[in-house]
Amino acid sequence: MPEKTDYRMTAEEFRRHGKAMVDWIADYYARIESFPVLSQAKPGQIRAALPKSAPEHGETFDSMMKDVESVILPGVTHWQSPNFFAYFPSNTSYPSILGELLSAGLDVQGMLWATSPACTELETHVLDWLVESLALPEKFKSSSAGGGVIQDTASSSSLCALLAARERATAYASNENGCDGRLVAYTSSQAHSSIEKAAMVAGIGRANLRLVPVDEKFAMRPEALAAAIQQDIAAGRVPFFVCATLGTTSSNGMDPLPAIGAICREQSIWLHVDGAMSGTAALCPEFCWIQDGLEFADSYTFNPHKWMFTNFDCNCFYVADRKALIHTLSILPEYLRNQATESGAVIDYRDWHIQLGRRFRALKLWFVIRHYGLEGLRFHIRRHIELAQKFASWVSEDSDFELAAPAPLNLVCFRHRGGDGINETIMSRLNKSGDLYLTHTKLRDRMTLRMCIGQTNTELRHVEQAWKRIREEANAAKKLSQSAR
Amino acid sequence: MPEKTDYRMTAEEFRRHGKAMVDWIADYYARIESFPVLSQAKPGQIRAALPKSAPEHGETFDSMMKDVESVILPGVTHWQSPNFFAYFPSNTSYPSILGELLSAGLDVQGMLWATSPACTELETHVLDWLVESLALPEKFKSSSAGGGVIQDTASSSSLCALLAARERATAYASNENGCDGRLVAYTSSQAHSSIEKAAMVAGIGRANLRLVPVDEKFAMRPEALAAAIQQDIAAGRVPFFVCATLGTTSSNGMDPLPAIGAICREQSIWLHVDGAMSGTAALCPEFCWIQDGLEFADSYTFNPHKWMFTNFDCNCFYVADRKALIHTLSILPEYLRNQATESGAVIDYRDWHIQLGRRFRALKLWFVIRHYGLEGLRFHIRRHIELAQKFASWVSEDSDFELAAPAPLNLVCFRHRGGDGINETIMSRLNKSGDLYLTHTKLRDRMTLRMCIGQTNTELRHVEQAWKRIREEANAAKKLSQSAR
Repeated sequence: MPEKTDYRMTAEEFRRHGKAMVDWIADYYARIESFPVLSQAKPGQIRAALPKSAPEHGETFDSMMKDVESVILPGVTHWQSPNFFAYFPSNTSYPSILGELLSAGLDVQGMLWATSPACTELETHVLDWLVESLALPEKFKSSSAGGGVIQDTASSSSLCALLAARERATAYASNENGCDGRLVAYTSSQAHSSIEKAAMVAGIGRANLRLVPVDEKFAMRPEALAAAIQQDIAAGRVPFFVCATLGTTSSNGMDPLPAIGAICREQSIWLHVDGAMSGTAALCPEFCWIQDGLEFADSYTFNPHKWMFTNFDCNCFYVADRKALIHTLSILPEYLRNQATESGAVIDYRDWHIQLGRRFRALKLWFVIRHYGLEGLRFHIRRHIELAQKFASWVSEDSDFELAAPAPLNLVCFRHRGGDGINETIMSRLNKSGDLYLTHTKLRDRMTLRMCIGQTNTELRHVEQAWKRIREEANAAKKLSQSAR
Repeated sequence: MPEKTDYRMTAEEFRRHGKAMVDWIADYYARIESFPVLSQAKPGQIRAALPKSAPEHGETFDSMMKDVESVILPGVTHWQSPNFFAYFPSNTSYPSILGELLSAGLDVQGMLWATSPACTELETHVLDWLVESLALPEKFKSSSAGGGVIQDTASSSSLCALLAARERATAYASNENGCDGRLVAYTSSQAHSSIEKAAMVAGIGRANLRLVPVDEKFAMRPEALAAAIQQDIAAGRVPFFVCATLGTTSSNGMDPLPAIGAICREQSIWLHVDGAMSGTAALCPEFCWIQDGLEFADSYTFNPHKWMFTNFDCNCFYVADRKALIHTLSILPEYLRNQATESGAVIDYRDWHIQLGRRFRALKLWFVIRHYGLEGLRFHIRRHIELAQKFASWVSEDSDFELAAPAPLNLVCFRHRGGDGINETIMSRLNKSGDLYLTHTKLRDRMTLRMCIGQTNTELRHVEQAWKRIREEANAAKKLSQSAR
């Protein structure tokens, strides 16, 4: 950029502020444990500290960073704190931040191959790498009939899977004439809410999404799925889509893919598999069992932005038949026509998702994989799982607590034996203390605490401290409820 | 982050590599004019230079940056080059890059207010600022019944508008039972392809999207719209959605909102307005006329990531009735329940779009507005429009060329009078030369060149040079075709 011109930040200023920002971020990670993990801000607090109107005149960068410190930080829930155990993680790492910075600097649009060939080819390449590294079925590789794409979230890619399934089932007539109301989709009662949302968005309707019951491990019952399908067929409806989950959000339940897959194949139903967080575990051979039966799947999605040290957003979506996906989502107006596209020799990723525009997200994923190497990634995944297993053993050895579900990987569902009220108190007191952050779910209608261990910098000491604090708050809550009697 | 631990990048290394990356980016902008604007890479070239498998062992950051230089850069089309005149711009600026870096550093998930109150409140606040700064209707402010949200692209927010319209028209029965095939949508024949895609995705079907004819200025004919609606009603169909465009992609055509709005109001049809690029012009009072009639709109979308110096992705989406949008897209599983949400006192943005997860995108927009100030933003918008008007005058004064459409703002559609062939040759030779990048469209079935001026660093000299090069290639092409006779 040219030096000092009207209103623009000069290169010199950018160098100075940029380096200060890099230091600010490193300092942030150094002091991250000093903040309450869950922001203690009150509704409206941040807005109240901001001027009512946009500034007419430019302000200094220092004044902006001052506001970041005093106004923004108190309103931040620290997802990158090693004491963050809520939801699923959304972790990152330094190499990923650098990849995002580079992507913002280049700021290219990867909608077409031609609009930045490297943006497309690096993405295809790294997603092919991951097919190998995760031991995914070969059919998801771009060298076969399938391929992978980076989307923003599993919500979006599951929607795309459902759309491609819808079109395959109707010979592409739904795109043309709209939905006809006979299509029926299936997922388990424990599936992520995004599947219901996808059914709504795609014009299928949530009444046409069957929530198949689960077994004692919160895994879909294949015989219940088969029965539901038979019932629908008998009623003249058209089963077209099943979404199975590898690691449900509530409890990390693992749907049995071999049995579900066999049913889908018999009925020619599109099988989509959602491995949003847990999919990353398959980097380690000893956890590849979660993918047993994935060879039946038509599509698969998992999020490096959850548990693979790559900052949000970075979702990987694979299809076995890329033509079905492209045929579903392709639109080619004149202003996007170009030689490379017409040649058929390239991938134009705008036909692989809802959006047209797209960032160069492969850079950060490439940086992360290259920085850690597969052995480094495996090291950390194993460490997280080890910590979670340790935590689960403490829970099961404590007579006040119980495990609420199996903990196959890094999520531990547990509860105090004292009932819903005490568990609610424990959670609320812990989160208000700022020492750690965990969230809840309901399993068999009972309040259940979730401890998910996957933050980049979580160490044994953080998990030990969390367990100590949980027991402390349990004891305090017990005393409170006794004195209230 | 802890110092030196297994496989992780240390804080010390991050500081070093991060500062080097900041310098790399500043250096990149200093040498950006030395690259061919349109990448000259051949299909497969980038992939051929990459190892077949992911590395087992970690690599140095220096080796990664070496590959960025030698493998990635030749595959980059330089959207930030001041010689980029293709499509619509997707511009950025140094303050925006710093905002993106900060966002990547904090890496919070803003799906719920509680998961980072600042992420939600800053977004609401800055979008309220823009209602004022752009002189948008008051009803789009969060203090009224409406409000704004940052989405990734106009494709996504137009889809959300269409979904909310679908639900309002069917009393929320489509979400429940699926589409019933009677709904009909309308947009002009010049509208962005994303509207057709939205109709497909939402289960409406593209056969139920009427492409209303345009007038000599490529603006929708309101009387044709009214007639199409009457015809559909007479046939028992249900008109539910009209998308009007402020600044079509092909030619910057401006649909007449007052007339279209009156029709929509009379028929209770949801009016969505797409101002993707041109919307930014309304920062300047003298260009606010493009928004005449916007008070009729139920929703509005424009992209700061196109022409407001904020890097992709940053789309602003406004609705007049936020409840309609939220009711359409809301899903509340147990694991996302929390006190703040139940209190009703906060916004949970995950109910405002398709995705669940979301980045802290308001930071970069806030940085850009504060750095430039409104006067700085206006200065650059005016400059771009001035340059485009200058370019248009050169075209119209040259007897070899003609303007192919009015140029109300910063897009000039023009052609050589020698026919489609010579225009194709001119474009292809220019883009192959690497000196500049422009793209084409078809207007009244004739090949038309598009010169869109909106890159952050484009100056008069770049536009002058572009016009010189266009005439050179035109003369060369003329000679070629003469000698071929």
